[in-house]
Amino acid sequence: MEVQAGPLLSKIDLPEDLKKLKPKELKEVCKELRQYIIDVVSVNGGHFAASLGVVELTVALHYVLNTPYDQLVWDVGHQAYGHKILTGRRGVFHTNRIYKGISGFPKRSESIFDTFGVGHSSTSISAALGMAVASQYKGETDRQHVAVIGDGSMTAGMAFEALNHAGIENSNLLVILNDNCMSIDPNVGALKDYLTDITTSKSYNRFRDDVSAVLSKISELGPDAHKVVKKIEKSIKGTILKKSNLFESLKFRYFGPIDGHDVDHLVKVLEDLKHIPGPKLLHCVTVKGKGFALAEKDQTKWHAPGLFDKITGEIKKTISDKPQPPKYQDVFGHTMVELAQQNDKIMGITPAMPSGCSLNIMMKAMPTRAFDVGIAEQHAVTFSAGLATQGLIPYCNIYSSFMQRAFDQVVHDVALQKLPVVFCLDRAGIAGADGATHHGAYDISFFRGIPNMIVSAPMNEEELRNLMYTAQLKNHGGPFSIRYPRGAGVMTDWQRPFKEIEVGRGRKICDGEDIAIITLGSIGNEAVKACIELNQEGYHPAHYDIRFVKPLDEKMLHEVFNKFDKIITVEDGCIQGGMGSAVLEFMVDNDYHSKVVRLGIPDKVIEHGEQKELWAECGYDSASIVKNVKKLAMPRVTKGMVG
Amino acid sequence: MEVQAGPLLSKIDLPEDLKKLKPKELKEVCKELRQYIIDVVSVNGGHFAASLGVVELTVALHYVLNTPYDQLVWDVGHQAYGHKILTGRRGVFHTNRIYKGISGFPKRSESIFDTFGVGHSSTSISAALGMAVASQYKGETDRQHVAVIGDGSMTAGMAFEALNHAGIENSNLLVILNDNCMSIDPNVGALKDYLTDITTSKSYNRFRDDVSAVLSKISELGPDAHKVVKKIEKSIKGTILKKSNLFESLKFRYFGPIDGHDVDHLVKVLEDLKHIPGPKLLHCVTVKGKGFALAEKDQTKWHAPGLFDKITGEIKKTISDKPQPPKYQDVFGHTMVELAQQNDKIMGITPAMPSGCSLNIMMKAMPTRAFDVGIAEQHAVTFSAGLATQGLIPYCNIYSSFMQRAFDQVVHDVALQKLPVVFCLDRAGIAGADGATHHGAYDISFFRGIPNMIVSAPMNEEELRNLMYTAQLKNHGGPFSIRYPRGAGVMTDWQRPFKEIEVGRGRKICDGEDIAIITLGSIGNEAVKACIELNQEGYHPAHYDIRFVKPLDEKMLHEVFNKFDKIITVEDGCIQGGMGSAVLEFMVDNDYHSKVVRLGIPDKVIEHGEQKELWAECGYDSASIVKNVKKLAMPRVTKGMVG
Repeated sequence: MEVQAGPLLSKIDLPEDLKKLKPKELKEVCKELRQYIIDVVSVNGGHFAASLGVVELTVALHYVLNTPYDQLVWDVGHQAYGHKILTGRRGVFHTNRIYKGISGFPKRSESIFDTFGVGHSSTSISAALGMAVASQYKGETDRQHVAVIGDGSMTAGMAFEALNHAGIENSNLLVILNDNCMSIDPNVGALKDYLTDITTSKSYNRFRDDVSAVLSKISELGPDAHKVVKKIEKSIKGTILKKSNLFESLKFRYFGPIDGHDVDHLVKVLEDLKHIPGPKLLHCVTVKGKGFALAEKDQTKWHAPGLFDKITGEIKKTISDKPQPPKYQDVFGHTMVELAQQNDKIMGITPAMPSGCSLNIMMKAMPTRAFDVGIAEQHAVTFSAGLATQGLIPYCNIYSSFMQRAFDQVVHDVALQKLPVVFCLDRAGIAGADGATHHGAYDISFFRGIPNMIVSAPMNEEELRNLMYTAQLKNHGGPFSIRYPRGAGVMTDWQRPFKEIEVGRGRKICDGEDIAIITLGSIGNEAVKACIELNQEGYHPAHYDIRFVKPLDEKMLHEVFNKFDKIITVEDGCIQGGMGSAVLEFMVDNDYHSKVVRLGIPDKVIEHGEQKELWAECGYDSASIVKNVKKLAMPRVTKGMVG
Repeated sequence: MEVQAGPLLSKIDLPEDLKKLKPKELKEVCKELRQYIIDVVSVNGGHFAASLGVVELTVALHYVLNTPYDQLVWDVGHQAYGHKILTGRRGVFHTNRIYKGISGFPKRSESIFDTFGVGHSSTSISAALGMAVASQYKGETDRQHVAVIGDGSMTAGMAFEALNHAGIENSNLLVILNDNCMSIDPNVGALKDYLTDITTSKSYNRFRDDVSAVLSKISELGPDAHKVVKKIEKSIKGTILKKSNLFESLKFRYFGPIDGHDVDHLVKVLEDLKHIPGPKLLHCVTVKGKGFALAEKDQTKWHAPGLFDKITGEIKKTISDKPQPPKYQDVFGHTMVELAQQNDKIMGITPAMPSGCSLNIMMKAMPTRAFDVGIAEQHAVTFSAGLATQGLIPYCNIYSSFMQRAFDQVVHDVALQKLPVVFCLDRAGIAGADGATHHGAYDISFFRGIPNMIVSAPMNEEELRNLMYTAQLKNHGGPFSIRYPRGAGVMTDWQRPFKEIEVGRGRKICDGEDIAIITLGSIGNEAVKACIELNQEGYHPAHYDIRFVKPLDEKMLHEVFNKFDKIITVEDGCIQGGMGSAVLEFMVDNDYHSKVVRLGIPDKVIEHGEQKELWAECGYDSASIVKNVKKLAMPRVTKGMVG
């Protein structure tokens, strides 16, 4: 749905239009931009609170900088809606996160103003430093390079790695720390406390005041004392106040903290900073959700609230008179508590996704046994490994695409040492509207190569519960991974008593003839739908849920290959090296020669859209499975084939 | 070769024996331990300078702590030789890093004193925090948890992630910062400068002195002034000196810097720290190579010098009257300079391995175009991506097993954006004596699933040069990866004029009958040897060097599958999802039905040893290839088959 912008905003197509405004008009632009974001997001959905928090910063940056020549990198990009609206995309902003529409994140292929594609956190300083070093090498000394990064993103290791490097390069880099005490959930860790401390002046500013007071007292003692005071002031300013700052320790010049909602002051400060060479950090304090009272109050809920009434704030829900299946996330969250009540060795770990993965349920119920470690996937895995060395059973929940950050730790710290860490891979497979950066495409292929590893995926909620239950029943000699997708499953009566699942054992979903479909995980439900349709048309494929990619159910595979010379594999993951390839390896190692068609994410970048749209694009939704079966199999009209 | 230990050391089998000694005997034990390390390493090889640097720390820790109940985690583990010698492994220490001998790194399966297996850097704080949190949960309040981490390792992001988390956990954790200004090469980055700064007191201590002087002057002004002075002293001590420290910012109690070679003082400090709860950091200043003058002088060279004369310090070299092929590393280093001289867009990046990968040659020749970014693989990749957005062509050299740390960045920051970063994967395949943690087993499988990626491997030095040359000739629409192993290649006359290699084109090494061998990379030379032997015995396998795993040479593969129904694939990488699997995928997708036997690293942990020993263990050295060909093929006596 397209929405009318305010009078000033509707004249701004590009930053050059913004620059034509008088400084005193900027406040009004901010107001209109904020309202526009509220108007559009309330009817189209998307990320909300983060962009409201940086409206003033966005306007000030594009007003002061000469974008796109000057280079602006937004970390993560949840907060870049204002930036998109001001840089040529107001007219298409209503297509945000919709299939074939604009991306919810900055993206190089979308606009020259998007200098670096983002989605995962904490990349901005590295990227902007690369740009700044390139400019320095090319002699473009007038060029500005700015990374805008939240305090949540600052906790991830790669941000620190980048600061450590930037501190010794004399390139023109400004890091703007957007300090709102939040990632998606409240930010955690010592750094947050430190930033709060210097912002609220608890000790730093009080000391500064104390010293001032003391010094002025000393000054009164006479001219000698006055000289002494000058000397001590110089020392304090030159050394202690500098060194007292964490960022100054890393050779950044630190400025702030300043109010990130005072656009006039922001413009002045940014103008000044343009003329200061070398690495600089500007600490801006902002409020996530600023200007929308409910969002300011409950920032996690309003991170991406879905559709809502912009006046009352009521969040619109799909009403159904039938009970709906829960999200896999909720099944994980509730099951964690149930299992932990039964087994006191179980601990829960999430890197900054307590509400996203639902570990918050356990954090509330058992606060000493569930840990949000911040945006820190690498640490999350090795911390879990440390717990496991002490006989505990950590369930470490990481989104599949974020697990890409901790692959080494899974190999080096967990699998090589055969430690019993349970990895719950949320958002495995096509993630939906978050798009290319968030699809969990690679975990099957990169996990199944690791020795001592169990790789599994549940086809429904009960299976997820039972795999989680099975993982802690005994020591399996190494890590146990369970992948499941974003969103709702298929069962309403999912909270059934726990049952052990034999590791490495798949199951037959339905008998059939001519052709077998082997699926992994929740996408198997698309095959179930396909089979129903195919049955009606006289095709009778068998359907097997392989359930474990490692170890493979060799008994079941022998059965399949002995019976079928036409096989279709279906997985919600990339087809190179995935489950289908594991099946091929089994086939060739065992001298079978069936025709195998592998369906899965093809070898290209898959953009955003609804999961079903993207499964169709990738060719493994139920319709595609039907098509492939028909292409491969001969129809046979028989009865009673559906198990 | 076994070596005699000194009189005190020879009585120490376990830390309990060390504890029986009087405090005044510890210096002598240190002397004997240092000498023992020199004696053994000089004749057996291994890592050298790091362990010499922590002799006093090692003795003090085992003297004060109640190991293994108290838990000691060594970061990386290069420095843990003294620890191994004091904890039951003096008798087998001469088998260090030898096939079937003890590991060069701490390893859980080797000793109860090795609380956490290491090899890759910067895991120790996360692991020790996991242990400390577990102890807290279990009520083991008397238990100590110590991570010993170098200042080099401290630059990696995951160390920072762990500090950020540890700062808010009130668990009993002591981090000992072993500050010697080195990783393998000199440590780099702002953190190093900061540590040097607080150690050498350039500003911090000078300020402290300044303030003291000033305050005492003020005091002289009278009783009022004296009061004021007391107040200001309190303020400074209570706030500034605390907050002035980076680690205190992260809620660690900071102690030091202290001399890490004063064993008596170390014992006293460690005793004191046992009684201080919560997260603590002890800053120890040490000298890498301490006690062996040459190693103190050239610490990089003496990190792992090979065999040497312990009196003269002469490093023993294998003398040969024939010219020897260079290491792939040297080919990389020299070729970087050659290419960069021709193309001013080329930049070089290494995360802390300038001497290991030989980028130091370019760093010396073109210091503004080659960057050591510290132990920071994630940043290295995204920094390269930033450079690439500006039209530069970064060659980012990362060891294959360390690339496991930057998989997400390769996907998210490089491949999705189609940026032309060249990844040179050193130490791909079996790495040798460094063992399980360092084998580059997974890169083929985790890289080939990534869209827009080129995955290649040279069979010899000239091919490496030509792939490096080809990578920068034009924009290939995404990253270009080149994997090659540790160590020497096969050509002495390698520095030939550059030739472009067609992307996705393999080559036939020799014609043959009955059976084809498809190899990837340098391990193909084992197949060459095998073919020579097989020819003599009347077998005539064809040999193809596939060269690119992505894109595959489909033309060549059609030729192979049309001609051969027996195929052996050989790769120096894990067989699940690797090159062989790519060949299977091609075969099945194209309805071929040959018998394919895949040779590569099997699905188990491969320990340390010489590369050839481990290739044999894995079943893909020349002898294994011969065996497999014989098993599969029928001999035919024909002539002229070797191309």
